[in-house]
Amino acid sequence: MRKCYFDHVATNPLLPEVFDAMVPFFKEDFGNPLSVYELGIKARDVIENARISVAALINAKPSSIVFTSSGAEANNFALKGIALAKQNQGKHLIVSRVEHHSILNTARSLEKMGFVVTWLPVDKYGLVDPEVVKKAIVKETILISITHASSEIGTLEPIKEIVKIAKEKKVPLHADGVATTGNIPIDVKELGVDLYSMAAHQFYGPKGAGALYVKEGIRIVPLIYGGIQEGGRRAGTENVPAIVGMGKAAEITSRDLNSRISHCKLLRDKIIDGVSKIPNVYLTGHPENRLPHHASFVVEFIEGEAMLLMLAMKGIYAASGSACSSKALKSSPILLSMGIQSALAQGSVVFSVGIDNTLEDVEYFLNEFPQIVNRLREMSPFAKGWKTGAEGDKCYTGG
Amino acid sequence: MRKCYFDHVATNPLLPEVFDAMVPFFKEDFGNPLSVYELGIKARDVIENARISVAALINAKPSSIVFTSSGAEANNFALKGIALAKQNQGKHLIVSRVEHHSILNTARSLEKMGFVVTWLPVDKYGLVDPEVVKKAIVKETILISITHASSEIGTLEPIKEIVKIAKEKKVPLHADGVATTGNIPIDVKELGVDLYSMAAHQFYGPKGAGALYVKEGIRIVPLIYGGIQEGGRRAGTENVPAIVGMGKAAEITSRDLNSRISHCKLLRDKIIDGVSKIPNVYLTGHPENRLPHHASFVVEFIEGEAMLLMLAMKGIYAASGSACSSKALKSSPILLSMGIQSALAQGSVVFSVGIDNTLEDVEYFLNEFPQIVNRLREMSPFAKGWKTGAEGDKCYTGG
Repeated sequence: MRKCYFDHVATNPLLPEVFDAMVPFFKEDFGNPLSVYELGIKARDVIENARISVAALINAKPSSIVFTSSGAEANNFALKGIALAKQNQGKHLIVSRVEHHSILNTARSLEKMGFVVTWLPVDKYGLVDPEVVKKAIVKETILISITHASSEIGTLEPIKEIVKIAKEKKVPLHADGVATTGNIPIDVKELGVDLYSMAAHQFYGPKGAGALYVKEGIRIVPLIYGGIQEGGRRAGTENVPAIVGMGKAAEITSRDLNSRISHCKLLRDKIIDGVSKIPNVYLTGHPENRLPHHASFVVEFIEGEAMLLMLAMKGIYAASGSACSSKALKSSPILLSMGIQSALAQGSVVFSVGIDNTLEDVEYFLNEFPQIVNRLREMSPFAKGWKTGAEGDKCYTGG
Repeated sequence: MRKCYFDHVATNPLLPEVFDAMVPFFKEDFGNPLSVYELGIKARDVIENARISVAALINAKPSSIVFTSSGAEANNFALKGIALAKQNQGKHLIVSRVEHHSILNTARSLEKMGFVVTWLPVDKYGLVDPEVVKKAIVKETILISITHASSEIGTLEPIKEIVKIAKEKKVPLHADGVATTGNIPIDVKELGVDLYSMAAHQFYGPKGAGALYVKEGIRIVPLIYGGIQEGGRRAGTENVPAIVGMGKAAEITSRDLNSRISHCKLLRDKIIDGVSKIPNVYLTGHPENRLPHHASFVVEFIEGEAMLLMLAMKGIYAASGSACSSKALKSSPILLSMGIQSALAQGSVVFSVGIDNTLEDVEYFLNEFPQIVNRLREMSPFAKGWKTGAEGDKCYTGG
């Protein structure tokens, strides 16, 4: 049976070159980067090289990259680190409703600590309106955090426009770039963001390595205290092989990004075209302004989980919403915030392609998926009489 | 030239079997543990198996193990997690003066947040007196945090006795077990601790994997918020290969611990015997009740850093104090807290042996080290006339 891994937003296979680059640091070059002797110096040097590669991927200064253990840690670090650093200036944060759980739940934890969060609404495409951001800013606002793209719906947020407003009001802006870094070109200087989160396994690097870009001059309180690692901004013995892997993956991504995008877009567009032909299936997120490898839908009358299991039986691997919440069988708060009704939101399914996918994968998938939808609808009590109405479109727009 | 790695407290080489166990999870088995299909299920299963192995190493229930990215993260998680969970009951913590930076600096950050910390003194061996702990406990005390052993001085703290007192007063106790786990037998049930920190690279596992034992029934606030990983206690896509490696390392350590201890103790004792013969060199920490692979000294009239560099030129790799502070050229606060004078504390050097060391390594070292000390003393302005006095002993006891 053909295997089609269409879940690149959950995680990615490691590039062989990345693995090869990591291996010596599991073996002979096992030193602690803080040790004064050769083994330590070597480990220190390769970390600094990785920092240069990761910085280059987003056009940042190497000194503004702080390595973390994951994108989630980077997001926690950004929100809590700025909130604690600036709490004497104010205790108000602005966060969108289409954020990843690592932002949502961190913001909620700050609410419990006495901070006040304004939760920004989004339109039917999941877009944040910069004008709404402007209105939300008050004297006490110390941070705005907006995802660059949600891995659930793929929509690219207008970060540059929001930054313009943030700058006018002198409020720092953090963008969660976990889903974007390695999938679209990122230039933090052009975007103007103050903080930007990344995760290596989103661009064919290893799990266990992430980073937070912290613009020069931005004061941030550590999330993990201890030794002097990462310039005192993030303690703990460095995960040298993972950092080296992240550097290598960044280097390869910088080189290959354009061809990756063309490849993924071609496959992705075919998926959108094909799946959209199935009756009562609706694309979620923005139709054009979205991650190039990302196609997300709601399928009326059936449940995402059931589709995933049926797809898996055919060797097709996909997601229903964010991997981090796939076990929590609730309607996605992101889809609900876009006005999609709860019953329809249950039928969420996300296909994300990568460099390991082929046109044949997509053809195979487009042959299997309509049959799966049909079979599930035949079993679904909700599907009775669905052929008669046209309520799907209304559901989609939340009407 | 012979290479003698005597810095096993800084980090350890990875066992080949551990690396082999990790490899598939960098390659074909790259799935996200939260994905519903096969690749995800497999990743989830191996994490649960690793949890069983890590739990077995310290005689804990698997469900009480929370994986982290490092020992430092586990220490931060323990202190901040309990402080935030229990702040309505009180805001007082008790922390010893011989803690690792990841405890010291986390406790200091809590002080800035309005918590009050009592810093426990230690005796000349670095021992915390349980009676002093008893006196420090007040109605508002919500946590006691004592290292099981400091990697700088090797002294094993009387955790069991301190726990007895903590239990009487119903205060939870966290022990930092980063330096002990894998080096001495640990039984968290017998110790009675409520929280216990570990790091895989301290027992021949990979960097990037640590764990916090959280006894059943202890409520703790996450340090990293986000998805539902680790039962909602620690978010972020799991570093599957590193966790698998930690599990494998724990399994091998459980099997080999006794022979490791005998091997290390033999070499360590020879180091202590040999180095103690050099005039005006003093063992730091407890003479018997210490980590079995650990020998630490202060060498009068010379600086630790200079010794390390001269040793490294002979292929001998050692540390001066904690690796996490080796770049900060201040006298170790741990040595100062034991009453060692600042000038003498500068001459700190730590040798920690491991399974990769041999008797020949020790013999080679014992031949080279006295010459290095002599050469440095010849260059040292402080060493003038040192042969005439016997002030060393006085310095050592802080008299």
